Amino acid sequence: MEVLSQAKAKQIRLLQQKKIRQQEGLFVVEGAKSVLETLASNWKVEWAVGTSRFFQLNEKELEHKSLTWFETDEKTLSQISYFETNETCLALVKQKQPLQKPDENATLWLALDGISDPGNLGSIIRLADWFGLNEIICHGPVVEWYNPKVIAGSMGSFLRVQPIISTEKNIEILWKNRTLLVATMEGDSVFGFPIPKNTCLVIGNESHGISASLLANAHRKISIPRFGAAESLNAAMATAILLSHWRST
Amino acid sequence: MEVLSQAKAKQIRLLQQKKIRQQEGLFVVEGAKSVLETLASNWKVEWAVGTSRFFQLNEKELEHKSLTWFETDEKTLSQISYFETNETCLALVKQKQPLQKPDENATLWLALDGISDPGNLGSIIRLADWFGLNEIICHGPVVEWYNPKVIAGSMGSFLRVQPIISTEKNIEILWKNRTLLVATMEGDSVFGFPIPKNTCLVIGNESHGISASLLANAHRKISIPRFGAAESLNAAMATAILLSHWRST
Repeated sequence: MEVLSQAKAKQIRLLQQKKIRQQEGLFVVEGAKSVLETLASNWKVEWAVGTSRFFQLNEKELEHKSLTWFETDEKTLSQISYFETNETCLALVKQKQPLQKPDENATLWLALDGISDPGNLGSIIRLADWFGLNEIICHGPVVEWYNPKVIAGSMGSFLRVQPIISTEKNIEILWKNRTLLVATMEGDSVFGFPIPKNTCLVIGNESHGISASLLANAHRKISIPRFGAAESLNAAMATAILLSHWRST
Repeated sequence: MEVLSQAKAKQIRLLQQKKIRQQEGLFVVEGAKSVLETLASNWKVEWAVGTSRFFQLNEKELEHKSLTWFETDEKTLSQISYFETNETCLALVKQKQPLQKPDENATLWLALDGISDPGNLGSIIRLADWFGLNEIICHGPVVEWYNPKVIAGSMGSFLRVQPIISTEKNIEILWKNRTLLVATMEGDSVFGFPIPKNTCLVIGNESHGISASLLANAHRKISIPRFGAAESLNAAMATAILLSHWRST
C-alpha cells in the first residue's frame, strides 16, 4: 500500500475550510465506524487513509472494497484530522447535491431555521434518522451540512438524511398545503396536542428563535411546557422531544 | 480594585484538576451569565475575577454584592480559563455536600448509571431543571458533578439541581418502594405507557448501558421506539424524551 504523500495530507487539511469543501464538492469522514459505514453505503468515496493497526483490525471488511487506501501513522493522522486525535482512518467523500424540494408524501417536514451550532445540527440529523425522517429543510443561515463536527455528531446518520435548502424566495412551500407549526418559548403547550398530518415543524435558531416570515405565517406556535426554572431548552433537546411527541401521538 | 495576583491565577488553574477540586471543596463558574446567577443564589462565592469591561457593563448588578473581586485583562482571563476564551469573568465557588438520600416525596427519581460524558451530564442537569426535578441520583462511575464542562453545559441549572451519590452498598433504595424503570435498547415501547408514580427511572452509560444489579432488579425495561436506521440515541436525548413523556402522560 502506498504511503500518504505530503500533497494528499495537505488536501485533507485544506478540506477543514468550508470554502475549499464547497469548491471541491468533497468532505471528510473520520473514524473507523463512520468510514466503514460510508463504504457500505451508496456515497462515493474518493480515497481513504488508515493506520496499519486499522488495516489489521479490519482486514476482512476491507478486502472486497475496491478503493485506494493510503497508509500513515497515528501521529500524522491526528495532525491532518479535524479533531484532536484520530487513531484509525478517514475518508474523502463526494458531497451530494441538496434536494430541490421536500417530499410531498412525507407526513412530517422538519425545518431548521438558522440552527448555527454544528453539534446541534449533527444531533438533529441523528434524531431525524432515529425517528424515520429522510430529509431536513435548512432555512436561512444554517451551519454547513458537511462541517466536520456536524458529520461526526450525526454518528453516521448523515448517510441517510438529506438536506433541502430553503430560502426566502421559495419559503411559501413551507406553509402552502401544510400546517406550519413553529416551536417558540410562548406557544401553546404541545402536550395533549397531536401533531397533525402534513405538518411542517420549525425549530428556531439557538439565540434568535424563529425568523419573522415564518413566525408571521405560522398556523400555530407550540411550546414544551416548563415545570422548573431552567431558562431554556437546547435546540436539539427540543427537537428530540417534539419528534418523539409526533411519533407517540 | 486589586489586580489578580499570580498566586490567585495559579489557584484557579489548579482547580482545573479534579483532585484539587475535591481537596479544596471548590469549583469554578465561568461566564457573566452563570456568575451573576450564582451571585444571586444561595451558593457561597469565595472571590471572583473580571475584566474592566465586565465591571463597566454590570456596575448596577454588582454594586450591592459584598464580594472580593479581582481585575485582570481578557488575555490573562482566557489563560486561566478552562475554556479557550473567557472575556468576562469567573468565580470560585464552594461545593455543596451531596445529599445522602433522595427525597421520598418526589414522584420521579432520575438516576444516572455511570454517565461518563460531561456534556451529557450538563445537558441532563439542565433538562432535570426544566422538567422540575431538584435531584439527580448518580450511581457508579458518573463523571464528576463539578467538572467545568458539566457546570458550563448545565447553563446555570447546577444551582437548582443537586446530586445524590448512590453506591452498590445502598443501591436497594432505588427499587424498594419504587418502580424501577431502566431505559434499554430492547425494552417495551414507552409510548402509550404512562410512567407510574413513585418511579425511579435509570439512564445507562453511553457505551455499556445499565449495570448488572440494576438490570437484575428492574421492574420494567423501557425503550424509545425507533422508526429509522440510527443505531442509538444519545443519553441526554433519551433523557429529554423520557422526562417529557413523564410530564405529558
